[in-house]
This record gives sequence, structure tokens and C-alpha cells, in this order.
Amino acid sequence: MHPIDLIRKKRDGGELTEDEIRFLVEGAARQSIPEAQLAAFLMAAFLRGLTLYEEAALTAAMRYSGEVFDHAGLGRTTVDKHSTGGVGDKTSFLVAPIAAAAGVAVPMISGRALGHTGGTLDKLESIPGYNTQLSLKEARRVIDACGATIIGQTKNLVPADRVLYDLRDRTGTVESPWLICASIMSKKLAAGLNGLVLDVKTGSGAFLKDLSASRFLAALMVDTGERSGTRTAAILTSMDQPLGRFAGNWVEIWESVELLKNQRNALSEDLRALSLVLAGWMIYLGGKAASAEEGRTIAEAKLTDGSALDIFIRMVEAQGGDARLLNDPVRFHTPKFRREFRAEHSGYLSRVDCEKVGWAVQRLGAGRERAGEPVAAHAGLEMHVKLGSRIAAGEALCTLFTDEESRFAEPEELLASALVIEDQPSAPPALISDIITRKNSAEVLQNHFQESPVRP
Amino acid sequence: MHPIDLIRKKRDGGELTEDEIRFLVEGAARQSIPEAQLAAFLMAAFLRGLTLYEEAALTAAMRYSGEVFDHAGLGRTTVDKHSTGGVGDKTSFLVAPIAAAAGVAVPMISGRALGHTGGTLDKLESIPGYNTQLSLKEARRVIDACGATIIGQTKNLVPADRVLYDLRDRTGTVESPWLICASIMSKKLAAGLNGLVLDVKTGSGAFLKDLSASRFLAALMVDTGERSGTRTAAILTSMDQPLGRFAGNWVEIWESVELLKNQRNALSEDLRALSLVLAGWMIYLGGKAASAEEGRTIAEAKLTDGSALDIFIRMVEAQGGDARLLNDPVRFHTPKFRREFRAEHSGYLSRVDCEKVGWAVQRLGAGRERAGEPVAAHAGLEMHVKLGSRIAAGEALCTLFTDEESRFAEPEELLASALVIEDQPSAPPALISDIITRKNSAEVLQNHFQESPVRP
Repeated sequence: MHPIDLIRKKRDGGELTEDEIRFLVEGAARQSIPEAQLAAFLMAAFLRGLTLYEEAALTAAMRYSGEVFDHAGLGRTTVDKHSTGGVGDKTSFLVAPIAAAAGVAVPMISGRALGHTGGTLDKLESIPGYNTQLSLKEARRVIDACGATIIGQTKNLVPADRVLYDLRDRTGTVESPWLICASIMSKKLAAGLNGLVLDVKTGSGAFLKDLSASRFLAALMVDTGERSGTRTAAILTSMDQPLGRFAGNWVEIWESVELLKNQRNALSEDLRALSLVLAGWMIYLGGKAASAEEGRTIAEAKLTDGSALDIFIRMVEAQGGDARLLNDPVRFHTPKFRREFRAEHSGYLSRVDCEKVGWAVQRLGAGRERAGEPVAAHAGLEMHVKLGSRIAAGEALCTLFTDEESRFAEPEELLASALVIEDQPSAPPALISDIITRKNSAEVLQNHFQESPVRP
Repeated sequence: MHPIDLIRKKRDGGELTEDEIRFLVEGAARQSIPEAQLAAFLMAAFLRGLTLYEEAALTAAMRYSGEVFDHAGLGRTTVDKHSTGGVGDKTSFLVAPIAAAAGVAVPMISGRALGHTGGTLDKLESIPGYNTQLSLKEARRVIDACGATIIGQTKNLVPADRVLYDLRDRTGTVESPWLICASIMSKKLAAGLNGLVLDVKTGSGAFLKDLSASRFLAALMVDTGERSGTRTAAILTSMDQPLGRFAGNWVEIWESVELLKNQRNALSEDLRALSLVLAGWMIYLGGKAASAEEGRTIAEAKLTDGSALDIFIRMVEAQGGDARLLNDPVRFHTPKFRREFRAEHSGYLSRVDCEKVGWAVQRLGAGRERAGEPVAAHAGLEMHVKLGSRIAAGEALCTLFTDEESRFAEPEELLASALVIEDQPSAPPALISDIITRKNSAEVLQNHFQESPVRP
């Protein structure tokens, strides 16, 4: 088999076989196929699209390109939740312990801050001592101890994705639903899941700003998951403003712990509501509820009775984190500088360019510009208002936290254009706009192909 | 300027500026842009196509990526002929001396055997001593001495094409009319031409087998040439059987010399006729005739009066070749083995898979499998029949020449399926199917865009 023949086949709109796709993926993982050939293939796949058969084959080949998480003898179903990335999105710290409290195991493999979006691992590492770099064997011990673990990708898990993602990043082939789906699903499926809930973000703070593109990606992921035997559901959720009250690293742990302690706050209600829906689906797909709605009821019970908090604390301890800080998170919030960002005039918060808010958080020090850079644990942002809030002139819209005073200028400029105050209130977008499961994914895919068919 | 932004722009169907294209081409020539990024750009350009503005900009950027052939003080117009490649295509050895005899200068920069097609340089190098690797200064001295030179590409002429062509070859991005046009025209225009005649082959032995694709490429090249001030015409010619009587290296020099000596042969008449048309266009575009038809008349006069032969001999001598061998070329034809290939049954030669004939010639040793391999000067093939010929069972259809007896098997197998004998005669295709000049190129391009528009 020669890479050039496979490039030409995809270029001309042909369908590659499972063997041909595996040849390319293994060549990528082993670095035996030159980057130039992989780049040409990726661009051809970007512009031609893949068939559903190719998508499943690509995902499977990537999934098995390295070690996989084996849960033999666990005695529980395994379920995970994955988000396509947002600002202030901290549902993982809620849904993982809630679902574990309901009796499913959660082997969650997460990522780091990327662009304007935060990273679950960076947030967890703001807890002194928390180790995200466990081996799969060590992670299994954490699951055995408390039912849930949140770790980083191991070096040998889906090595093909590491190579291909790095190459896509350099060759303008990131924003393909086909390639995004294979990248996400190969890693999730390598974690050995019985069920998977996808939180697909749309709106100004999402990578995919357009609802129809998000629905297509969601249906593609559901189809790919179901084809490989993992019960999969995708919840399309609004990322038109930061989720909850805080965006950053430690501040997001703080907000999550408050909710786990039943300390409710109007600004955190969207986060709480979404977490319960997501956890409800996890519980349902994990076989511990007869419906997602029943799952949500169980989830709320596990949140309010403190059992989810208990699991979260045990998970932090099992991964080496100093759980005592969770007793009084506000005291441990120690940014060197704080500054309030105020409204210039009165009105209603009518629109938020949520991606700009994400960049503001990143520039404050909570994210990184290049892979490998450190992030500041206490940098970030506290929102004091939500879409639809009545605003008085001079009122504090948010508070910025950073360790370097020079880092205020750029975020302030970003926020000045990101937070739009108008005379008339406008209706805030629904938190959940659609749910895609195996029942309706085929229809969504079909509609998409009718509107923009894969080129012949 | 960042390569990634330009890749994404082309990927999404945008039009690059002249500066952006020059940035990419210079980055390729200097190897400052990584191959993976160039490969992604090439695939995006392959699938999206270019606009005519981008095509001209790409060709110009490549043309000026290295040294150019400067003809200051020559006192003659410069004209060249370029063929898209065929089997037995030896018109260069006729048209260059004929046009020079008519008073135009011919600075012909040629290539080597590629795939199933022969290479002008390989054929010339079958003349002992003939040096194709002249500097532009040395080539100028040959033109001063006899009006024509046929040399290989110098190392510094259009270095961007060397890099890009090599990359296209490895990344499945060769067969794009846009990229083919830029590759051909940048090299031709770097040779500093007032006029250019393109022999665009179609049919079973051409790289582009389809007439409409050939017409589009031809119009694209005419448009690109005219935009940069070179009078350009494209002649669409049949490559449905080998051109003339011989295909190989020395045998093609032999056949050309026979025609230059007015030794006519029924099997060489197509070669003679096409050479006169092409030379006629060169003379016309070089300003030495009022029309292409008048040019053809002049060309025939320069062929029959021996002045073209005289120039050919002087050119061979000026480039170090042993011109005495041209006195009796058949005596110098010294392959170690000869074998006749015979018809299995009687009928008419109704179809020739000319690409297979080309591969047979290559496998006999006249071509190469990898760049840099030596070729056999006396390997090749003599055709004894033409399309439409009446064939008796057992009659010799052609004679094969090689230096290694083991090389007969594969060509014989290829020829058995390439030469089709049927009961009824069929009309052989017209040698010239169309002529595209600045007068009709816009119309051809327009029709093409209407049928298959560049994607938005």
C-alpha cells in the first residue's frame, strides 16, 4: 500500500477501506509516513469530507493506535462526559462525582487550556499536589477507591491523535467536523466507555459558532460512538456567555465546591442546571436510571445529600491533592492583583462576545499562548452579571484577577467590546437547544448531506 | 504573513494576493516554509482551483524565483515550442533548427524522460559528447553560433518549481491544470521568450487523456503567457499512437535526421506534418511570417533546402556532440538485442493504448523508473504499422531494441494488450484537433468555468 494512492483516492472523492485508513493512521503514529503526505491527505479529507464508514474506521484506527483503558473486573459500567470547550465550563467537577455517587464509574481523561477555552487539568492542578499524570493502572486504583478519576492523556493513549492534531494545527486542517469527531471520539473510546455524554457548545464562546455545524458534529459523534458499541448522546448547549460565575483555574474549583456543598448562587444556577442534566444522561446511559429525566432526579439527590462532594474530596485526596483547601476555597484564592471592570453606561447586558471573554481570561494568565507554558492558578475572572441583567452606569460587571499588574490592559480592552449594554433587554438564549441520540442522529446526518453533500 | 493563514484562505475558496502567492513561492524556493504546509496548500489549490489572477501571480512568482535567461543584444526574437509529453515525440529536433533557419532564435530548455513519456535531453545525450548541462552563458554562445540550443534546466532557473514539483509528485497534487500550467509556463517564461508554441497532447498516450481537460489547460497556458507579454499559441494534437516511426533515444535522433535530410518515410509523415505546423507557428509568433500558414510554407522550405539540417549539425557540434554519427545514423544504432513483435491474427490496427506503448519503451531501458537512473541510448521500438493499417496474421507490428534480453518479456505483454486488431478499419484520429490562441482562449476558459466553476 502506498500513501500516494490513498491521497489520490480521497482527493478524487473515493471511499477508503478500513485497511487503507488503518495504514495511514499507523503510519502517522509510527511516523513512517512523511508529514507532507499526511498533510495532503488531511487537506483532501478536509475538503472532500469522509463517509460515515470512513469516519468509523478512522476513529477505530486512532483509538487502537496505542494502549487502551481496560476496566476488566471493575463491576460497574463506565461513563464519561466530554465538552467541546467553553469559557467557565467546569461541569466535569460536578458530573464526575455525581455520576460516581449514583453508581457508575467515571474514567475521565481530560485536556489542557486551548486558545480561549480553559483546561480541566489546569484547573485541577490549581489544587496543590493534585497529580493529573497518572498511569492507567494508577487511575484504576483511584476509580476503585472512589468511583471517579480525572487525569490527563497518557503518552501511549491514542498516539496517532497527538501526531495528527499537531499536524492539523500547522496545516489549516483543524476545523473539519470529520477530523474533530475522530480526534475526540478516538480518545474517548480508548478510555473504554459504556456510555458517553457529549456537551457540544454553540454560540459566541464555542469553537463552532454555528448551530447547524454543531448539530452535524454532534450527530457525527453520536453515530461514531454508537457504531463502536458505546451508548452516546450529545447535548447542544449555549456558550453565549461564561458558564456560571467564575472563569479561570482555582476560581472554577471554588465555584464547583460551593455547588457540591449546596451553597447556591444566582450566578451559578446555569452551571448547576446543566451539570444535573449532563449527570442525568450519564446515569441513564450507565444503566442506573430508566430515563435521562430520572437520571437528573437521581443526580440532584446525589448533589444535595453531599455524597458527590464526598466523592470529589476522596478523588482529590487519592490523586495527591490537598483537600483541606476545599473547606474554605475563598481563603485560598490569592491572586496578587484584583481590579473591577465597570459599565460605562446603564442598560441591559444584551450580548456577550464570549470568545473575547475567554481570551481575556487567558491573557490574565489563566491560559497559555504556547503548549507547555505554565498557567497562573489564581488568575481569572468573576462575573457579576448575566445576559439580561439590568446594569447601572459605573456598576462592576466583573472582577479581574491576575498575578502581574501589566496583564490588566489587554483583558480590559477585550471586555470593553465583549460586553454589550443596550437600552432594551433581549431574551437570553436557551441553555440547551437540542439533544441528539441514536434515535435522531441519522436524520440530522441525512439532512446535512442533503444540504451540503460530500463531493463526488 | 503566516503560511497557515494563506492555507486557510485558499482552503475556504478565497483569492490570494500577488504578495501572498510570492510569499509562498519564495518560501518554497528558500525552503523556509515546512513541506507539510506547502503540501496542504497544494492540495487546497488542487481541489479549489485558482483564479486567472492567482494563476498569473503564481507563474510570475515561480518564474522570478531564480535566474532568468536574458537575451539582451541578441538582435533576434526568441521563440520556443513546448510539448506536454508523448511517445515518439521528437518534433523538437526538427522545429528548433527549422525556426532558427527562418531567422528566429530558439533557446529551448527541455526535460528528461518522465513516466511513460520520453525525454528530449535523454535523446540528445544518445549522441556521444552532447552536453545538455550548459550554463545560460554557454547556451547563449550556442545561440549566437547557430540560432538554436537545446539544454537542460539549470540549477538556478525556477528553483521554486524544482521544490514544488518534487513535493507534488509525493503528495498526489500533480494532475491539476492550474499547477501544471504554472510549472510549465514559469520555466518557459524564465527562458525569456517573445513567442511560445505549446503542443498539448490528448489521447491514450497523453498525460491528459480527455480533450476538454486538454483544451482547458491549453487555454490556461495561452492566457498566462499572453498576460506576461509572450505571444502564445497552443496546438491540440493527437497522442493516440506513437508519433512517427521510432520511440526511444538514439532511434528518435536517427528518424529526425532522416527527415532533416529529406529522406521521407510513410511512417514518419505524421511527425513531419506536425513539425511543419509547429515550426510555422514559431516563425509566425517570432514575427518572420504574416500568418501561421505562411510560417508553415517557410518552414517546409527551410526543411527541404537543407538549412535546418545544417543548423542541427552545428548545434550538436557546438554542444560537444559527435556530429559525424549523423551522417549514417543507422550504422550507429547498436542495441544488443532485437526482437519482432508479431500480430496474432489479421485485421486492421484499430486502437493503440499509447501509454502502454510508452511503458513498453521505458521498460526496454529507454526510460527510467527513478530520477537519476541512467537510460539506454539504443533501447526503444520501431513501429511498422499505423492506426488503420491492414495487418496480416504473423506480420511484424514492431521491432523491440534492448541491451538486456530479460527486458523483452514485460514490453511484449504490454504490447499484446496495447495494439488492438479488429476486423473493420476505423478512422484514425485527426493529428490536430484544435488551435487555441489569444483570440479564443477567453471563450474556452469561460465555457470551462460555466461547466465546472471554481468552487466558492
